[in-house]
Amino acid sequence: MNRESIVSELTVETPSKIILLVMDGLGGLPVQGKTELEAARTPHLDKLASASVCGLTDPVFMGITPGSGPAHLALFGYDPTKYLLGRGIMEALGSGVEVGKNDLVARGNFATLKDGLIVDRRAGRIQTSENEKLCQYLNSTLKSIEGIKISVYPGKEHRFVVKLSAERLSDALTDADPQKENKPQAYTSPLSQEAARTAQIVNAFIDQAKELLKDYPKTNTVLLRGFSKFPSLPTMQELYKLNPAAVANYPMYKGLARLVGMEVIDVGQELAELFDALEKNYSAYDFFYLHVKKTDSAGEDGNFEAKKRAIEETDKYIPRLLSLQPDVLVVTSDHSTPALLKSHSWHPNPFLLFSKTAQADKVTRFSERECSQGSLGRFQSIYAMPLMLAHAGKLKKFGA
Amino acid sequence: MNRESIVSELTVETPSKIILLVMDGLGGLPVQGKTELEAARTPHLDKLASASVCGLTDPVFMGITPGSGPAHLALFGYDPTKYLLGRGIMEALGSGVEVGKNDLVARGNFATLKDGLIVDRRAGRIQTSENEKLCQYLNSTLKSIEGIKISVYPGKEHRFVVKLSAERLSDALTDADPQKENKPQAYTSPLSQEAARTAQIVNAFIDQAKELLKDYPKTNTVLLRGFSKFPSLPTMQELYKLNPAAVANYPMYKGLARLVGMEVIDVGQELAELFDALEKNYSAYDFFYLHVKKTDSAGEDGNFEAKKRAIEETDKYIPRLLSLQPDVLVVTSDHSTPALLKSHSWHPNPFLLFSKTAQADKVTRFSERECSQGSLGRFQSIYAMPLMLAHAGKLKKFGA
Repeated sequence: MNRESIVSELTVETPSKIILLVMDGLGGLPVQGKTELEAARTPHLDKLASASVCGLTDPVFMGITPGSGPAHLALFGYDPTKYLLGRGIMEALGSGVEVGKNDLVARGNFATLKDGLIVDRRAGRIQTSENEKLCQYLNSTLKSIEGIKISVYPGKEHRFVVKLSAERLSDALTDADPQKENKPQAYTSPLSQEAARTAQIVNAFIDQAKELLKDYPKTNTVLLRGFSKFPSLPTMQELYKLNPAAVANYPMYKGLARLVGMEVIDVGQELAELFDALEKNYSAYDFFYLHVKKTDSAGEDGNFEAKKRAIEETDKYIPRLLSLQPDVLVVTSDHSTPALLKSHSWHPNPFLLFSKTAQADKVTRFSERECSQGSLGRFQSIYAMPLMLAHAGKLKKFGA
Repeated sequence: MNRESIVSELTVETPSKIILLVMDGLGGLPVQGKTELEAARTPHLDKLASASVCGLTDPVFMGITPGSGPAHLALFGYDPTKYLLGRGIMEALGSGVEVGKNDLVARGNFATLKDGLIVDRRAGRIQTSENEKLCQYLNSTLKSIEGIKISVYPGKEHRFVVKLSAERLSDALTDADPQKENKPQAYTSPLSQEAARTAQIVNAFIDQAKELLKDYPKTNTVLLRGFSKFPSLPTMQELYKLNPAAVANYPMYKGLARLVGMEVIDVGQELAELFDALEKNYSAYDFFYLHVKKTDSAGEDGNFEAKKRAIEETDKYIPRLLSLQPDVLVVTSDHSTPALLKSHSWHPNPFLLFSKTAQADKVTRFSERECSQGSLGRFQSIYAMPLMLAHAGKLKKFGA
């Protein structure tokens, strides 16, 4: 039996409640001797850590820097090396494009074609507003191909998402992107017999888009890559008999939550709104995924101070979480985003689990270094879900 | 996707450099309260540990005592439970026998046959010099069988290596060794259809050797076991886009390094020569495996003091490693060899990783006990390679 089926078979439905607070990109690296977490004043997190069992997690395994997809899947109990999410689906989720079971999506670029060669794969990084106009124009003029509806959705600068909705589409397609400049327009090729029809439709779309865009000097063609169908993951209801809700305000995380069957509670951009929404919906669900984005954004910007402030700001809401008296409260991150590196990294994530059935260890401060001394030790994020379920009394005995 | 292919697909070539210093058999057990490492004066290693991230490794998994083969393969990032090295190939590597793609090797014993029974499987543990003479005699008188060249290479005491060079040889052969005394001469049997011809050739060799040796009272026959072909492992170039070099002075470790595609830089027996060779060749490679043998030999001899001295001696060279300013420096062992046990053991290995992107933990002394408090926790050696690659900036992000 594998881990997933063991956990799944042992799960029972109970009224107990779990809150998983993900401070995105929380883990950091020292600048002048202290990480963002170490530099931040976090009295509530520290008090919570003192009463919790702590550890450090590796989202995939040691050394691997995860994207948001695998990092979150692991926290939700899905093996990130088994459930692989294509770049197209991640871009679509990130852009807030709703993707259904029969949809095929890909990442697109507006690009510049000159004398038969792609001379700029990013069309001079046009303004997002120009991109929006181009997408609107394409959506209103594109003709359906073999009766299949095709839509484009603007992203930032030159990037967009294309979505084809029809049965029997395949994502076994090569990128329609020369990858380098000064190469001819690229078309997709099928990687399997079944994908032949889809490849024809995609290539007909490329030709139609070229025709419609031919009078736009900079943005007269499109490149497509990362074709993905909607990944079919078992839901958290199916796996864990949970009735889960996501409280998140960024499209990517709402999309990821939908992928695993969470109900998404839409909230605005303010931190307080996350906690307001949680309180308002607390009676309706038994698993809550709360997503704080600011810590990661500040890390990506290389802004140590902003990340520190985002941590301190989040710390203030910990008492509100505790006053809900959840059976299990976990605070952790999906992956590290040290301001020093301005990017996701492979460094482990601080992790705390607070529950009546968790024995507090010697950790008295919520930080990377201190959590390394916790009773949970260093473990793969995939084990967070069985731990949460166990402490919530949702896991039966394995074997007799 | 499995771990190996994930790491392999994410690796990018960069000019950054990694040094892996393996102090063979370093891990120990306390004698009068202190392990060899704890008893040794190691100011440089301690200072390095204070600036590093530390942990303890299990070469295979908890409880498993590894041979040098699996222990090193794990450190090089090869799953030791997937890539199994036969005893024949390890004996050949250890004896400095060059083994090619078409070679079949086995371990041999000179043995004593009397009245049709093997009365001494080790021929009274003859002197190595006598063994050398016997091998010379056999090599000059053995006739080729079916046109196949057969050579024997002396080892210590009664042990030798036999090598057959030809196409389509198979190692699916049972041992030609009764394992116990007072049994008749054993011959090999094929374990597959394809091995039938090889078995005939091997058995013909045994009969020829018996005939040639019949007038030597103690060493009048041979036993063969552990038939192995050259294992085909992916190289470190293929797996990790590395250009790796081994600086080692024992045949076994040079052989292991060659197996995974390392360039072997030959050095003499003095410790200083390892570091001289490293410095001399530092610009030509991006991964350096340095092998210190003395710690293991002293452990195997049960000589606590000698192992302690070997550690102290190695410690003096740490500043020379650091002055090369490698992007990643790892100091660890392949397996433990406590002087108390006079043999390899299953105890975990102290491990430190020094890099600009590694957050120093609370460890201030390089020892088994202290490293158990490190941020890396306790982990399988197989993760050392992705960790080194990550800290050297050689691993891209996994997923989006």
